[in-house]
Amino acid sequence: MTKTTFQEFQSADFAAMSPYFRRNFINCLSGFKSLNLVGTADAEGQTNLAPFSQVFHVGASPALLGLLVRPDSVPRHTLANIEATGFYTLNHVRADFVKEAHQTSARYAISEFEACGLTAEFRNGFPAPFVGEAWVQMGLRFAERHHLAINGTILVIGYIERVQIPADCINPDGFIDLEKAGSLTSAGLDAYYEAKKVGRYAYAKPDQPVSEIE
Amino acid sequence: MTKTTFQEFQSADFAAMSPYFRRNFINCLSGFKSLNLVGTADAEGQTNLAPFSQVFHVGASPALLGLLVRPDSVPRHTLANIEATGFYTLNHVRADFVKEAHQTSARYAISEFEACGLTAEFRNGFPAPFVGEAWVQMGLRFAERHHLAINGTILVIGYIERVQIPADCINPDGFIDLEKAGSLTSAGLDAYYEAKKVGRYAYAKPDQPVSEIE
Repeated sequence: MTKTTFQEFQSADFAAMSPYFRRNFINCLSGFKSLNLVGTADAEGQTNLAPFSQVFHVGASPALLGLLVRPDSVPRHTLANIEATGFYTLNHVRADFVKEAHQTSARYAISEFEACGLTAEFRNGFPAPFVGEAWVQMGLRFAERHHLAINGTILVIGYIERVQIPADCINPDGFIDLEKAGSLTSAGLDAYYEAKKVGRYAYAKPDQPVSEIE
Repeated sequence: MTKTTFQEFQSADFAAMSPYFRRNFINCLSGFKSLNLVGTADAEGQTNLAPFSQVFHVGASPALLGLLVRPDSVPRHTLANIEATGFYTLNHVRADFVKEAHQTSARYAISEFEACGLTAEFRNGFPAPFVGEAWVQMGLRFAERHHLAINGTILVIGYIERVQIPADCINPDGFIDLEKAGSLTSAGLDAYYEAKKVGRYAYAKPDQPVSEIE
């Protein structure tokens, strides 16, 4: 296979792009992303649901996840609810409800659960709603908030307090088989993908060749 | 298809896990991740290369990417070099060099480019080395650094200054076809995946059904 023709861009080229083209283009550059629906409720119990592709691992002990909220993004209710109640859920999106998940990004006056036909599940006293259709569900408690001065983006960090996951997707070494769980990955603003395993490799050491983990 | 059996975990269960099991388990929870090799050079021109799965979009205008560096992670040279020179590259990993990419995480005394058989490409005066084998390459300039007090993680934000990408992977609307470019996604500490498109959907509006983008 020969390499294809490459195109080069510099910062001045980004400035010359139309805003729509630039948003699509730049949003793809980081690579594939996670895809979570964030479930919240306000102080009166009114539920809210919004898709986020900017969720990432911050630490294992204590278990922490980061969530990036763009200042100009639709789900401003999500942030208000997290700050009001201190709790939220993260729910991996599967192909069988990806269209409903995408649709939660529309600006609804009512709860996105109801508007998009997804199930708000309150379970075991956790104050925020899980997405009943999701196979990987997490309940988080707000920990800290950072304001990224450079463009007003807000980084929310939370403690993972609850996890519900298909029992047969947990390997003996703790690895979670997200492909088997049907978790999707996303790219740009609007593209969704399934993942197909290439390999899992043992901890790398300088004097040893790469070896596969089953 | 019926749902499988679910297993529930609470924070106390995380504490009871072995550190190895917990690291694998918690690192998978965020979902699928990007996969970039970060190329740097020190003030003397000695090159360094390390894999990062914590790269994410921060803004389109100006074009900004975030990079999360765990305090206990191997690639501490990466951070030192970024701070010393102000420049670094991000290079999407493809399946045809994923083993070499994984191997760059080993603790080498020499450059990981040389040790792992990847090509350090200095191009057009950019001060940090690109990975010649990568189809999606970016050159970044350091913008700001945040210390996440909660566990000592460091968030590095940089301006995207250069992009090189296969010309036929750029759609007319600016969307980059990362599946066609062969960019991989990752999960946990050591698992790599190819992405297969499920769909791309138009901007969601409350009164319209989900519609596919070609």
